[in-house]
Amino acid sequence: MKHLWEELINYSRSDYYPFHMPGHKRFPKDDELACRMCRPKEEACMGGDFAPVMRDICKCDITEIEGFDNLHDARDLLLGLQQKAADVYHAEQSFFLVNGSTGGILSAVSAAAEEGMKLLVARNSHRSVYNGLLLNRLQAEYLWPQMTEGFDIQGEITAEQVGRYLAGREDICGVAITSPTYDGIISDVRGIAEEVHAFGIPLIVDEAHGAHFALSGEAPESAVECGADIVINSVHKTLPALTQTALLHVQGKLIDRDKLRRYLGIYQSSSPSYLLMASIDQCIDYIAGQGKEEYRKLLKLRKQIEERAAALSRIRIMPFGEKRDPGKLVISVKGTGMSGQDLYGILLKQYHLQMEMAAPSYVLGILTAMDSEEGVERLMSALEETDRRLLRRGGAAVRKNRETDDIYNMIPAPSGLSIYEAMQCKKEWLFPEEAAGRISGGFLCFYPPGIPFIVPGEIIGEELVSRIREINGSGEYITGISEEGKVCVCS
Amino acid sequence: MKHLWEELINYSRSDYYPFHMPGHKRFPKDDELACRMCRPKEEACMGGDFAPVMRDICKCDITEIEGFDNLHDARDLLLGLQQKAADVYHAEQSFFLVNGSTGGILSAVSAAAEEGMKLLVARNSHRSVYNGLLLNRLQAEYLWPQMTEGFDIQGEITAEQVGRYLAGREDICGVAITSPTYDGIISDVRGIAEEVHAFGIPLIVDEAHGAHFALSGEAPESAVECGADIVINSVHKTLPALTQTALLHVQGKLIDRDKLRRYLGIYQSSSPSYLLMASIDQCIDYIAGQGKEEYRKLLKLRKQIEERAAALSRIRIMPFGEKRDPGKLVISVKGTGMSGQDLYGILLKQYHLQMEMAAPSYVLGILTAMDSEEGVERLMSALEETDRRLLRRGGAAVRKNRETDDIYNMIPAPSGLSIYEAMQCKKEWLFPEEAAGRISGGFLCFYPPGIPFIVPGEIIGEELVSRIREINGSGEYITGISEEGKVCVCS
Repeated sequence: MKHLWEELINYSRSDYYPFHMPGHKRFPKDDELACRMCRPKEEACMGGDFAPVMRDICKCDITEIEGFDNLHDARDLLLGLQQKAADVYHAEQSFFLVNGSTGGILSAVSAAAEEGMKLLVARNSHRSVYNGLLLNRLQAEYLWPQMTEGFDIQGEITAEQVGRYLAGREDICGVAITSPTYDGIISDVRGIAEEVHAFGIPLIVDEAHGAHFALSGEAPESAVECGADIVINSVHKTLPALTQTALLHVQGKLIDRDKLRRYLGIYQSSSPSYLLMASIDQCIDYIAGQGKEEYRKLLKLRKQIEERAAALSRIRIMPFGEKRDPGKLVISVKGTGMSGQDLYGILLKQYHLQMEMAAPSYVLGILTAMDSEEGVERLMSALEETDRRLLRRGGAAVRKNRETDDIYNMIPAPSGLSIYEAMQCKKEWLFPEEAAGRISGGFLCFYPPGIPFIVPGEIIGEELVSRIREINGSGEYITGISEEGKVCVCS
Repeated sequence: MKHLWEELINYSRSDYYPFHMPGHKRFPKDDELACRMCRPKEEACMGGDFAPVMRDICKCDITEIEGFDNLHDARDLLLGLQQKAADVYHAEQSFFLVNGSTGGILSAVSAAAEEGMKLLVARNSHRSVYNGLLLNRLQAEYLWPQMTEGFDIQGEITAEQVGRYLAGREDICGVAITSPTYDGIISDVRGIAEEVHAFGIPLIVDEAHGAHFALSGEAPESAVECGADIVINSVHKTLPALTQTALLHVQGKLIDRDKLRRYLGIYQSSSPSYLLMASIDQCIDYIAGQGKEEYRKLLKLRKQIEERAAALSRIRIMPFGEKRDPGKLVISVKGTGMSGQDLYGILLKQYHLQMEMAAPSYVLGILTAMDSEEGVERLMSALEETDRRLLRRGGAAVRKNRETDDIYNMIPAPSGLSIYEAMQCKKEWLFPEEAAGRISGGFLCFYPPGIPFIVPGEIIGEELVSRIREINGSGEYITGISEEGKVCVCS
């Protein structure tokens, strides 16, 4: 079995001299030269310990030379490594991605797209799904996720919802959902895949946040195992791999693989990084060699958190479970009078804990097998102290965080224009009151729950206008509004 | 002035604990843990010296956390670093690219595209230009490069050619050329920019292979200095930067910058790598701090090569000059009876010199300021020995490499279908004889000179069919033909 890092290191120790790119020429062994490249001469050295690192990185940074295959036309080394990845993920075929899940999602949507047909898309999709709709000039229809009670996060898409939507439809070419969500909510992908396949169309699952499901049979069932046709995993998000690395898996007969490969070649650099690819391969070896114990380590850390969280009075951490990824920490301050942004700031400034994201009523943290008990101790101590302060504040007026159950009153009507067509129109910017009934030229997203409430081509309704007016700065906010408070409409 | 590596290293030495992606959590300090991630347990360690490198790389691999800005919405740190890059390249505005020049070229073509208009494109453009035409469903017309006498490489686009083509046209929305070419031929970008601007449309220059022109005033004039509206540089190809890194520069009023930014956000990962960005920033510091002397070092190495090349009898190295990049070595075996592929193989196997590319009658090498005198000595000694062997072979029948001057007899006629429209058609595969007069469904490229002779939507002519039949395996070859020898046509 081949390991890309090993191949690169062995090659770097050989006497082959490079008259090819990249321009660093695998860096001279001489540290003085490494320093020379590393720092402008007149500025202080960073301590002399970084030049050797740069040198080591560069010596493994090559291009498509003899023996190293070509990602865009993989025939030997990379074909084998990608097949190794497919075996670990139980897919038929897997592709290394070096432009993140973004490159994979654009390719997946483009491969599934059929001229004149529509894609059924979960509303809480990543922006690269929307960009895929734009680039392919596809009409879309949307599946709105259930809301998760009590935590202000959008939740799952249900199989029943998908089946009901598809019934009697012949104009839909595919379905795209996100599972798990950014906050860790997992949908019934198996049930959804069955519904979708009953209509003979493919299911794309953006499983960017679920790459670690492959670690162990004890982990949530992966989308590949559930039968999805294309699955995209960001290995960098929840596994030990470098940022910008991902995998795309494909199985079944519903996806045209030549078309998929063509788009992978379009959306990714023609000079893909061997460092990034080696990182993906190393991650595959990690999963294969140590996955079970690493997942148990993650669970152990998570259970420690749950135990201590049970003793908190005001702050709540959403419990993990069969449909809730143990790798995500939704730390809610709903109803405490403190906002998620406040908590994020306290954790950062007072405790030097950098969280993943702040939402109006919660903070999101990512937990992986690479976390330490010390890190968990620091987090829980910080939450306990903060919780005690909130308790002491106690009787003071508790600022009520708004309920978000009413979003389903605001589902906008389509105008008939696709996202692409709406983006092509001339635009104007109007105050919300003047915009009622007009076709939106942009995206408007509310936080919570962090999904677009209007996409280009949809009609801005009265309820939406009222809601925009009511956003009261209690931590809720909208993106897509100009600094003056105007929204973008098609002229 | 900020330096991204320094910011990352300082941050990595702080006590901030990560509850954010990436999943490696900036890697524990403990080498045993580093090893654990690095290698499956049952396999031999790679010598123990790689785990610390992985650890050092990972500790600088972060996401968009406090103080580190956001590439897709740069406001402070990255805005400043990109401005530093613009200053070094004398551009108004520059953008870091982490999906190679590919991401930049797709963005540039998409930004310049106007519905219903045509792009005037150099025929020898990189495939990402053609992919840009496809994604934007643009019609294109082509500028065919001059051929370079005696070396079988396609050459420059002339200002006069551009002006002549544009005269009286109102349906062209922009012009895209490549300079320098892969082989190092530089066009008169200043003259071309003047011609293009006289028509009020933008000029895009793929200067992927000319990022080093910014090193010094003694280097060839860069496309930005010549007035091009958008210029893409692959810093990784000819400068010391990691593979997959590039820059896009923009100036003037002809490009819609919001539109450009939107496409940069579409075609690049929403999780761009800070390692790649730090590599770009480091490269900028290198140019700013040491550019002049580094360029002189490159010239010195090149002059050593020229001097020794003068003594070769059979093998010729194309001289560098004002319009020929000193960083490219076109090592020609034309007329010697040896093919470029033969020479490439000899240099690789006998001399352990890995060249950039083999063409039928020449080998391409890349020379940068990071090359060593030892490397140059090895190359020239190898060429001298090989040349002596060719001389001894001397009187034996010299296999004549075909002249490529007749390519301009084969310029195909358009059918009216754009690349996109032709790609949408049903396809069939036919033998060339049956394909005459049919609309091509694919690309056919001849080597030499390595540019597409048919693109999808063009009509396969009799001359092309004859030429395909004549390809005699003397080193020339075509891509786009099936294993059976068939070509793809629209049904």
